Amino acid sequence: MKPSIPKGTRDFSPVEMVRRNYIFNTIREVFQLYGFMPIETPSMENLSTLTGKYGDEGDQLIFKILNSGDYLSKIDGPQLQESTAKSLTPKISEKALRYDLTVPFARYVVMHQNEITFPFKRYQIQPVWRADRPQKGRYREFYQCDADIIGSNSLLNETELIQIFEDVFTKLNIGATIKINNRKILSGIAEVIGEKDKIIDITVAIDKLDKIGIDKVNEELKDKGLSELAIHQLQPIIGLSGGTREKLNQLKDVLKTSETGLKGCEELEYLFNYCEYIASTKTTGTTTKTTVEFDITLARGLNYYTGAIFEVKPVNTNFTGSICGGGRYDDLTGIFGLPNVSGVGISFGADRIYDVMEELNIFPASTGTTTQVLFVNFGVKEEQFCLPLLSMLRASGINSEIYPEAAKMKKQMGYADDKKIPFVVLIGEEEIQNGTLSLKNMTSGEQTKLAISDLGSTLHSLLK
Amino acid sequence: MKPSIPKGTRDFSPVEMVRRNYIFNTIREVFQLYGFMPIETPSMENLSTLTGKYGDEGDQLIFKILNSGDYLSKIDGPQLQESTAKSLTPKISEKALRYDLTVPFARYVVMHQNEITFPFKRYQIQPVWRADRPQKGRYREFYQCDADIIGSNSLLNETELIQIFEDVFTKLNIGATIKINNRKILSGIAEVIGEKDKIIDITVAIDKLDKIGIDKVNEELKDKGLSELAIHQLQPIIGLSGGTREKLNQLKDVLKTSETGLKGCEELEYLFNYCEYIASTKTTGTTTKTTVEFDITLARGLNYYTGAIFEVKPVNTNFTGSICGGGRYDDLTGIFGLPNVSGVGISFGADRIYDVMEELNIFPASTGTTTQVLFVNFGVKEEQFCLPLLSMLRASGINSEIYPEAAKMKKQMGYADDKKIPFVVLIGEEEIQNGTLSLKNMTSGEQTKLAISDLGSTLHSLLK
Repeated sequence: MKPSIPKGTRDFSPVEMVRRNYIFNTIREVFQLYGFMPIETPSMENLSTLTGKYGDEGDQLIFKILNSGDYLSKIDGPQLQESTAKSLTPKISEKALRYDLTVPFARYVVMHQNEITFPFKRYQIQPVWRADRPQKGRYREFYQCDADIIGSNSLLNETELIQIFEDVFTKLNIGATIKINNRKILSGIAEVIGEKDKIIDITVAIDKLDKIGIDKVNEELKDKGLSELAIHQLQPIIGLSGGTREKLNQLKDVLKTSETGLKGCEELEYLFNYCEYIASTKTTGTTTKTTVEFDITLARGLNYYTGAIFEVKPVNTNFTGSICGGGRYDDLTGIFGLPNVSGVGISFGADRIYDVMEELNIFPASTGTTTQVLFVNFGVKEEQFCLPLLSMLRASGINSEIYPEAAKMKKQMGYADDKKIPFVVLIGEEEIQNGTLSLKNMTSGEQTKLAISDLGSTLHSLLK
Repeated sequence: MKPSIPKGTRDFSPVEMVRRNYIFNTIREVFQLYGFMPIETPSMENLSTLTGKYGDEGDQLIFKILNSGDYLSKIDGPQLQESTAKSLTPKISEKALRYDLTVPFARYVVMHQNEITFPFKRYQIQPVWRADRPQKGRYREFYQCDADIIGSNSLLNETELIQIFEDVFTKLNIGATIKINNRKILSGIAEVIGEKDKIIDITVAIDKLDKIGIDKVNEELKDKGLSELAIHQLQPIIGLSGGTREKLNQLKDVLKTSETGLKGCEELEYLFNYCEYIASTKTTGTTTKTTVEFDITLARGLNYYTGAIFEVKPVNTNFTGSICGGGRYDDLTGIFGLPNVSGVGISFGADRIYDVMEELNIFPASTGTTTQVLFVNFGVKEEQFCLPLLSMLRASGINSEIYPEAAKMKKQMGYADDKKIPFVVLIGEEEIQNGTLSLKNMTSGEQTKLAISDLGSTLHSLLK
C-alpha cells in the first residue's frame, strides 16, 4: 500500500512550518498590539448552522460529516432506494466542517452574548475547509486570519484596521497597496444614474473591471437591464482619474444629489485624513511598505458590506489576486436571532501571503532553522561530559541537541547541514582534558577554540 | 433559530485561549529547546490510511467525511436499498478526520522518506477527532502534542524525553510523577512464570491494577487462562516494594533466567543512572517539580511498545488519569511499506493539563490579559492627541488600544475591567495643555500623574 493524502490537502515539513509560523506569529502579534483577543470555535459546526449562509454554490462546497454509528437505522429500505444525495444528506449527516470564520463567529457571539463586553475585538486564526476543485494556490484546507470589532460604529475602528494592514506587511517586508472603497459611494452612484434597484448588479459588474475590462463590464450591465443612459453616465465615474483627493472631489460633485453617496465620500475622507495624520506623526526613519489608495471599482462581489470595503494587493510580484479583504457590515448576527450587531473586520490569507513571500524570496534567514547548536557525539564519556552543557544552554534559551549516538563524523556533520544548524560544538577527549572546545560555524566553515566556560556567552552573542 | 454546537466540542473564549496558548507555547518551546522540528499533516486523511489501525472499536470512532457532489450516482436503487451503514460507508466516504497524530506521522515519514534526515526529531501539535461518547474531560475534538525521534536506537533519546517531561512540568509549575517501565521486563516476567504467549493478556491486566485492584486483576488473569501457579508466581513481582534501585535489584534476581528481562532491567538502570547524573549536574537552586519512578504495573494497554514505557501523573490533585504517555516502538511505518523504522516518542494531553492547572489554580496572572493599556476616549481632539502615543507604545511592543468612541467614563472603565486591562491612560483637555497624563493602575485603583514623555518608559517598567 502506497500512502497518499487527499487532493487539495498538504503536509507541512519543518522548513515550511517555521515559515508559516513566522507569518501567523507576525499577524497574531500585531492583532494583539491593537487589543484584539483570540477565540477559537470547533472545527465542526451543526450542519444547520452553516447551510444557507454561503449561497447554493457554497452549500455544495461544505464538507459534511457522516453521522457515527448505524446511521441508516431510521431509514427504511424503500425510502433509502428513492434517495438522492440531496435528500439523503440531511438524514445521514448533521455536522459539517467550518467553511469560513465569519459564520461560526456570528454563532459564537449569539451564544456568548451575555459574557461578551462590547465593543468586542476578537481575532481568530484557524483552518477552514472547502470542497472546491483544487488548483495552484487553491486548497481544500487553508487558514484564515480574521480580526473584527463588533458593537461599535466609530470610524476609528476602520483606521485601526488599516494600520494593522500597514504594520503586518511592513513587518513581513511585503510591499502592498491597501485599496479602499465605500459601499455608500456605490449606492450613491446607482442612485444618481437612476438605477438604485440594480446596485448589486452594478457592484458585481464593476468589481470585475480589473479582470475582464470595461467593454465586458458594460455588456454585463446591459444584460442585467441597465439603461443605455445609465451605462453612459457610469463611464466617467468608473474612469475617475488623479489621486485620492482629486477623485474624491470629482465624486462629491457627481454625487451631490445623493445623501448616501455624500455620506460615503465623507467617511472615506475621514479615513484618508486619519491615515495621513497618523503617518505624519510617525518617527522619521520608519518606512512603511504599504500605500493606501481609493479604488472605486472595489466591490468585493459581496452584498454583505455596508460601509468601508478593503482589499490588499501585493506589488512587484506575479501574484495577481488579493491577499487580504474586509469591510464594514451591518447585522452580522441577525440570522441567529441577535439583530443590529454591526461591525468591521479584515481577513488575511496566510497561504497566499506565503506564496508571495516565497516568490519574492523574502523569508528571513532565521526562519530556516530551529536547532541552533549541535554537540557532536564522540562516545559515552564525551556524551556525559556534554550533557550538563546542553542543560545549561537550554536553560538559557538556546535550542540545542546532541547527536544521539557516536556515529561517524561525516554522518553527524551531514545531519547538522541538513537541519541547517548554524553551530556545531566538538568536545573530544583532548578538549575535556584541557577545558576547551571547538566551535564550528557551519555557514562560514570557520572553526575556533574556546574555553568551555565561555560557550554560553559566546553562543548568545553569535546568535543575536 | 437558537444556535448550538455539536456535543463534545467547545468554543474557546479569550481567557481560555490565552491559557491554552500558554500551555501549547510552553510545550512547543521545550520541544524546540531539545532540537525537535515542527510538522503538520492535513486534518483529513484518506479513509484507507486510518482504517484498521486502531482496532474495531477505534474504526467505529473515526469521523468519516461524506464525498462531495452526487455521491450516490454510482449506486443503483436496489443496491442502495440493501445497504447497511457498514456496507454503504466505503462507497460514500473516502476521507476521514485524523484520529491521532501517530498514524498520520507514520504516513508522513513514508511519503517524505527521501527528504528526511534520520534520526528525525519531529513534534506535532494538532487537534484530533474521535466519535467517543462525550463526558467530563472527554471531548470529540481535542489536541495532542507529540514529540518523536525515529531512526535511532540510542537510549540517550529516552533520557532526553524524560528531561522534556521534567522541563515542561517544572515550567508549568505542575508537580508530577514520571512513571517508567520497560516492555522487555514485562516480557521477561511472562517468560519466567511460564506464560510467554500470554504477555499481552498479562500486561493488559496488570495495567488495570491501579483502577480495579489486585483481586480483579487475578480474576482477569485466570479468565484469560493463566495457570494458578503462574498467577501465584506473579504476585511478589507485582508487589515489589522499596525504591527504584531496590525494586530493580529484586527484579534482576527474579528475571535471572530471562535474557530479555535482564535486558529490560539494564535499559531501565541506564535511564535512572542518566536521570540521576543529569539532576546532579544541575545548578543548585533549580527545583524540579517532577520525580521519576519505576512502576512495574505500567503497561499502557498497548501492544505497540517494545522498550521503555512512560506515563506522567499529576500529584496533589483530584485528577486521577495520566496527562502524558509514550514509549519506544519498533516498526512504526511497516504498515505503509517502510519496515524497520523504530523510534521513541511522548504525547502531552493539553486538555487534561488545562483541567489540572485550573483545578490547582496555577495559571500565571499574566495569562489573564492580552491588552495592557487602554486610552480613555474623551472626544475627537483628545483622540487625535492619543493616536501617536498609541503608535509609539505598539512600536515598543506594548499591547494598547483606545476606546473607539467618547462613551461615558463608566462604560469605558467597565470595558477595561471586563477585559482585565491592567493600566488605563487618561488624557483630557487639561492634560494636553500641560503635557501630563493620569495613569490608573486598575488592580490597585491608584492613579498617578506623569509627564506624557515618560509614558513609554513608565509602562515598560510597570509591566515587567
